[in-house]
Amino acid sequence: MSAPGRYATSNGGKQVRPTLYFAAWNAMADSSPADTAPALALELIHTYSLIHDDLPAMDDDDMRRGKPSLHKAYDEATAILVGDGLQARAFELIADAPELSAEQKVRMIKVLAQASGFEGMVGGQYIDIQAVDSDMTLEELRAMHEMKTGALIRASLALGGIAANATEAQLAALDEYGRNIGLAFQVVDDILDVEGDPETLGKTQGKDAEANKPTYVKLLGLDGAKAEAQRLLDEAIAALDSFGESADMLRELARYIVGRDR
Amino acid sequence: MSAPGRYATSNGGKQVRPTLYFAAWNAMADSSPADTAPALALELIHTYSLIHDDLPAMDDDDMRRGKPSLHKAYDEATAILVGDGLQARAFELIADAPELSAEQKVRMIKVLAQASGFEGMVGGQYIDIQAVDSDMTLEELRAMHEMKTGALIRASLALGGIAANATEAQLAALDEYGRNIGLAFQVVDDILDVEGDPETLGKTQGKDAEANKPTYVKLLGLDGAKAEAQRLLDEAIAALDSFGESADMLRELARYIVGRDR
Repeated sequence: MSAPGRYATSNGGKQVRPTLYFAAWNAMADSSPADTAPALALELIHTYSLIHDDLPAMDDDDMRRGKPSLHKAYDEATAILVGDGLQARAFELIADAPELSAEQKVRMIKVLAQASGFEGMVGGQYIDIQAVDSDMTLEELRAMHEMKTGALIRASLALGGIAANATEAQLAALDEYGRNIGLAFQVVDDILDVEGDPETLGKTQGKDAEANKPTYVKLLGLDGAKAEAQRLLDEAIAALDSFGESADMLRELARYIVGRDR
Repeated sequence: MSAPGRYATSNGGKQVRPTLYFAAWNAMADSSPADTAPALALELIHTYSLIHDDLPAMDDDDMRRGKPSLHKAYDEATAILVGDGLQARAFELIADAPELSAEQKVRMIKVLAQASGFEGMVGGQYIDIQAVDSDMTLEELRAMHEMKTGALIRASLALGGIAANATEAQLAALDEYGRNIGLAFQVVDDILDVEGDPETLGKTQGKDAEANKPTYVKLLGLDGAKAEAQRLLDEAIAALDSFGESADMLRELARYIVGRDR
């Protein structure tokens, strides 16, 4: 399966989750180099979820990151299996990471499995699919996104913290930062789905409105959604108050997530 | 997702992999009770693979264990997501197992991830799907099954061994036993697909022949396939020579796998 596997993983994604992992590790101002395995594991989990989400039975998206989706480039069976294999590979990578203690690995695997499973990403995607053509309150929409995308973003920060032997207080601050940027990320996604340039986005635009999915723009209006993104950015930055300059990369990332055009 | 999750996991399967795990642990004659988490994890990985294999894009099977397949009882999106979630849950269960050391957990997760991923179950299923309408030699068929079903069977024994702190020599003996019963399991599956009773089997029979898939029966004939199953059973029993009565459960299981009617 090496050809479809390469196709799926060499795709010019934004690498938000690996970047958050390294930025969280960096915030501890630890001098040893961070193990790269958890960063790759996070990106593999994210990539597998995109492959499965693009399937005709799910979001039915023909384009991903400016190229045909995996099931269009190959076929559905290949897309299902590559997704399944990438998930297994993510956990294998952490189990096999050279620089981490067994205790760090077990803790990371637990966090990553919970964030990507029924109580996290998979559960959120399930709610999202059921929600087509249904009315959601702002609270329900937020809860869905906290599972669907927020959980893995928070896990990225937790893994970076665990790699750097963060204290429980530091992990809690990272988590609060992550909760806010996770929500901001989705608000901006909804804004881009309305005003983004399909060329820059690399995916089909106007997709959510067409599928009659609940979005922040629908619930808050375009200006309201933009104000909400700014509020979440402010909260995220405030959560990092106990960190000094070592957390500047996290602060930059929060600003990038809210200011991005794709 | 609790209703489809329950539907998928309360299904009267044969529980071969959990049983192998406990039997392997038992062969070490350890007196402490074996942790049940790895047994459940093995069954969840197996269950997720059946759910995905049954999908229309894969083997397209409407019945499983005497009930409608998950995508027939619910829908395809639910089946994809439940499979994804069960895989994550399997790794979470091991990471969270109360009776195991961090080192045991990491080793088990690595074995399980490799056995279920591209070099194991998922890779074997990919070869299997590509093989429809193609000619396979006996050697290729065997290699495919060693990945598709054999890898997880061997992992079941390895996990039981790791749980009981088996020596490397004991783990190697368990693996040799597993290699043989894994192959025997598939040979018997192919025989049952031809002569089995669909009522007892709980799944569509004659499916492989209809899909024009390579099988042991096609390559060896019915009598040849039965002789091969017996030969593999003998090899499996011989691999357990260094164990005493403590391995009787493994010996029984090998006989059951070859003699079963479903």
